[in-house]
Amino acid sequence: MSPKITTELLKHLRQVMKNPRYVQEPVQAYIVPSGDAHQSEYIAPCDCRRAFISGFDGSAGTAIVTEQHAAMWTDGRYFLQAAHQMDSNWTLMKMGLKDTPTQEDWLVSVLPEGSKVGVDPFIIPADQWKRMSKVLRSAGHDLVPVKENLIDTIWTDCPQRPCKPLITLDLSYTGVSWRDKIVALRSKMAERKVMWFVVTALDEVAWLFNLRGSDVEYNPVFFAYAVIGMNTIRLFIDGDRMMDPAVREHLQLDSTLEPEFKIQVMPYGSILSELQAVGAGLSPKEKVWLSDKASYALTEAIPKAYRYLTPYTPICIAKAVKNAAETEGMRRAHIKDAVALCELFNWLEKEVPKGTVTEIVAADKAEEFRSQQKDFVELSFATISSTGPNGAIIHYKPVPETNRTLSVNEIYLLDSGAQYKDGTTDVTRTMHFGTPSAYEKECFTYVLKGHIAVSAAIFPNGTKGHLLDSFARSALWDCGLDYLHGTGHGVGSFLNVHEGPCGISYKTFADEPLEAGMIVTDEPGYYEDGSFGIRIENVVLVIPAETKYNFKNRGSLTFEPLTLVPIQTKMIDVNLLTEKERNWVNEYHQKCREVVGAELERQGRHEALRWLLRETEPLAPVQ
Amino acid sequence: MSPKITTELLKHLRQVMKNPRYVQEPVQAYIVPSGDAHQSEYIAPCDCRRAFISGFDGSAGTAIVTEQHAAMWTDGRYFLQAAHQMDSNWTLMKMGLKDTPTQEDWLVSVLPEGSKVGVDPFIIPADQWKRMSKVLRSAGHDLVPVKENLIDTIWTDCPQRPCKPLITLDLSYTGVSWRDKIVALRSKMAERKVMWFVVTALDEVAWLFNLRGSDVEYNPVFFAYAVIGMNTIRLFIDGDRMMDPAVREHLQLDSTLEPEFKIQVMPYGSILSELQAVGAGLSPKEKVWLSDKASYALTEAIPKAYRYLTPYTPICIAKAVKNAAETEGMRRAHIKDAVALCELFNWLEKEVPKGTVTEIVAADKAEEFRSQQKDFVELSFATISSTGPNGAIIHYKPVPETNRTLSVNEIYLLDSGAQYKDGTTDVTRTMHFGTPSAYEKECFTYVLKGHIAVSAAIFPNGTKGHLLDSFARSALWDCGLDYLHGTGHGVGSFLNVHEGPCGISYKTFADEPLEAGMIVTDEPGYYEDGSFGIRIENVVLVIPAETKYNFKNRGSLTFEPLTLVPIQTKMIDVNLLTEKERNWVNEYHQKCREVVGAELERQGRHEALRWLLRETEPLAPVQ
Repeated sequence: MSPKITTELLKHLRQVMKNPRYVQEPVQAYIVPSGDAHQSEYIAPCDCRRAFISGFDGSAGTAIVTEQHAAMWTDGRYFLQAAHQMDSNWTLMKMGLKDTPTQEDWLVSVLPEGSKVGVDPFIIPADQWKRMSKVLRSAGHDLVPVKENLIDTIWTDCPQRPCKPLITLDLSYTGVSWRDKIVALRSKMAERKVMWFVVTALDEVAWLFNLRGSDVEYNPVFFAYAVIGMNTIRLFIDGDRMMDPAVREHLQLDSTLEPEFKIQVMPYGSILSELQAVGAGLSPKEKVWLSDKASYALTEAIPKAYRYLTPYTPICIAKAVKNAAETEGMRRAHIKDAVALCELFNWLEKEVPKGTVTEIVAADKAEEFRSQQKDFVELSFATISSTGPNGAIIHYKPVPETNRTLSVNEIYLLDSGAQYKDGTTDVTRTMHFGTPSAYEKECFTYVLKGHIAVSAAIFPNGTKGHLLDSFARSALWDCGLDYLHGTGHGVGSFLNVHEGPCGISYKTFADEPLEAGMIVTDEPGYYEDGSFGIRIENVVLVIPAETKYNFKNRGSLTFEPLTLVPIQTKMIDVNLLTEKERNWVNEYHQKCREVVGAELERQGRHEALRWLLRETEPLAPVQ
Repeated sequence: MSPKITTELLKHLRQVMKNPRYVQEPVQAYIVPSGDAHQSEYIAPCDCRRAFISGFDGSAGTAIVTEQHAAMWTDGRYFLQAAHQMDSNWTLMKMGLKDTPTQEDWLVSVLPEGSKVGVDPFIIPADQWKRMSKVLRSAGHDLVPVKENLIDTIWTDCPQRPCKPLITLDLSYTGVSWRDKIVALRSKMAERKVMWFVVTALDEVAWLFNLRGSDVEYNPVFFAYAVIGMNTIRLFIDGDRMMDPAVREHLQLDSTLEPEFKIQVMPYGSILSELQAVGAGLSPKEKVWLSDKASYALTEAIPKAYRYLTPYTPICIAKAVKNAAETEGMRRAHIKDAVALCELFNWLEKEVPKGTVTEIVAADKAEEFRSQQKDFVELSFATISSTGPNGAIIHYKPVPETNRTLSVNEIYLLDSGAQYKDGTTDVTRTMHFGTPSAYEKECFTYVLKGHIAVSAAIFPNGTKGHLLDSFARSALWDCGLDYLHGTGHGVGSFLNVHEGPCGISYKTFADEPLEAGMIVTDEPGYYEDGSFGIRIENVVLVIPAETKYNFKNRGSLTFEPLTLVPIQTKMIDVNLLTEKERNWVNEYHQKCREVVGAELERQGRHEALRWLLRETEPLAPVQ
């Protein structure tokens, strides 16, 4: 990796920072956040403005350019990468280290008195604007919205915003029609006495209308906003996508409908002016509901007294609880995914000893097997295919410069998943194709114990996921080991592989309680820098549990694994397991045999079936 | 309990709400919070204004009186008590129930347009003022500070503010002189670039100056404020307490000192004007550090731009980490406390079968035995002495109306503690003086398993206490049982029995990481409404742990029980314990034998010693 040369670009940016064509008054600093206008985790190439200006293309980072300085804030995952990708114009600000200033404090320390700090109001979330603006103001500076994105003005070969065709999902996939979703949403709005709801997150728009897209890699979403009133539905979307007869039919655009279900289609770019018109026309007590993470631009369109802001929108919460059709779809998707992985692991077992399989080859092979399955759409994230020391890099993605060959002497970690039309998968397995060391087996077994502790946990209704996080760590902690990431995240149903509002993490304090029907991952790990990485990840469904005393009828919950891929028994030190844990492994493998075995049989994949049967033999008794 | 008749009082209050002698403009509503000017948990009789106006004397509740209404907000612990203690003038607002409005929403719904809502600015914390004021303002009303407390104006027989003599603590108790504490505080102030620190919490003033008082029952504190500058120390305190030669000597009031250690003693009531003078004299960049829970009055004394507010003050954090002298003192206090409880339980065993021991008698006897121990000062909270169904009332305190006689047929729960000059104790034991049922033993054993899971937990340095809460519940959860309170709280060193900033609770999200030297309780429980309550509580010290891999030198922590009182083995179903848990009980009891046994021997308490030896026999092997 050689750094991007940014001298000319920065010069150019500093010019437009003073150019009255773009800014009312010159700005002494310009902030370039990572996100897009929808606060998406994965963004389209046209939104990779921070990578364009700096060269640093990690998933998290904020650039700030002043007349004298250019600085980049990013977290520990990316210190090395950012240092490699940026030239000497840039100062790396290592977040999480004690001496690293916050963006605000740094700005205050470098700016001349009474400075203006510019930012694109569509890219910065309202809550962040508020925090930053307060600090700057108290130091005598001003945070100002710059309507035209200054990076776009200098990005001459900026790719176009994607505008790909839509997929319509019928009731067999979604379980609930978009009309019924609108009805449910309006009833939540009535409960909170709000008159309007603004849908800003891309997966929320997609879920609400039972549509999918492919504007962003890995996430089956499309660029759009929606504004739902008690009697109106406005969908802001570009291109000729609304000309597609299937979409018109799905949205009933040409049908005679009750007016409150008539969808008005408007240009994507008209959201701000339309919302401003809504804001201007409000009578007292008419509130507008927005996520508190919506952009500053859209939030400001509604006068403060009329805003109703919540961390999680009613759509986010409804979307998290999967209905029967979605759950069944997720089950199907996971069976197909398991078929692909049985094929892959069987293939790897034969090929790895030949020394010809690299991390990239293995990742491509995994995609090839998945793409053979029905309703496969694309991967759900960039495959983490890592062997030996690369496995210890938690967010590793193989590239030619780092690509390592799998061998019988190293642990191999594969974290991968796909989008199928009936569901989204995300699974991690850690394998050894030779003979693991006692220490590797010991660490693997602690991780497995943590995985089981979460998967088999029983907890009362209303429990938040973060209360389960320590269960995943307890066996590791007892020996002085730990892992520096959360234990699980919500998973969408043919939607984003990471979704709120639930999760299992020591970091997540604002998570919503787990409910039956929610789907999360269970993925503890252990990483030995420079040597190996271990992670065992299943997607699990929250289901009611049966207990002796049932929490005085409050009800209890537990998890059912949707992922049905064998956990390599060769890596397990059976003597470290309790009887209960050993039974869990055997029962899990029995289920893999029955369910995935039947599908392998049906698909005529006999060799993979033999591999499955061998890998799911019961564990030897605990000594 | 008959309700307090408040008709005349409310009439009187409504008059002063309009009386220009007390209010600049009439207020249409007046808020009477629970607290005092120091946001104390336990308050002096003169601060029980909410109880005076309403009759409801539970520990938590807020009264609001308007021209037409009088309403009381309190939580589930007090619904019954509040309903009994208040007359029909009052509406009970049951917090936590879905349909109960917040105070702000209720005010907005009942007030005429453009109302003024009054509150004593010394009693309301600044963060609460901010929240409330915002909602009221957005509805067109105003929250206004009323300088004179309106309850005080109508409370003709209001008790005087206590002003009791002070106790000075020498280095053998505190380990660090007040001078060194001031030096350390100033270095924290310099780190954060603040010039002044305002000490508002009573236990923080007491800790800083190595003084104790008895102005508030159970809490060895005294009414005072302090303002620490980089070169000045001001102590705001009333009465002739500063005439005491021991105190003058301790604070070196008559010595020739470097000016920066010279304490200026000022009247308690002058804090506001002195702080306003500080606020008026600040130069740019001179900040003043306050707790964000300090009163609105004191917070407002400092212009907004100069305030530095944090949830935990540097004193709160320093106070939580006990030094060697404090830890040794706590150990001594817990051994004495154990002696008293061995005496008590031995006595109860003999007396309970006679049918003459009531909950109050038992509580008094516990106090009697404690008061025989060296350096005993007072109890650390109102003893919870409860038998049978009373045990299920988590914050029960026996009163003549509820006083129940202990018997051989019911479980007895005793949660009690004391202030000794060398430490503070808080211990709960659950006993059966006859034959417990299989179900009672089952529940007790799950609670014990939870207690052990926390006490024996090993976790990396930097772990916050709330991450350990679920360990205490796991065994109960597996059977569908739970308890609706946190698992532990910080404990002061001859100070408040509840102190921040650490704790073990599913509710505590703002807790600070646990560090070696912190002291918390470990107190899971189980409560069967109408039948019994079970709780097992030890005070435990955070200590370094030894682990196989030591978290890559990040270091690990565990707990050492300071409480050394036998856990009744009769209540344990040994077959529900793992081998590890059984060993924990046996080792704990062995330590009780050795340490407390030696002290009982030394004090010549032979009968109690025999009781201890019998109660600490090793458990039968697990079958």
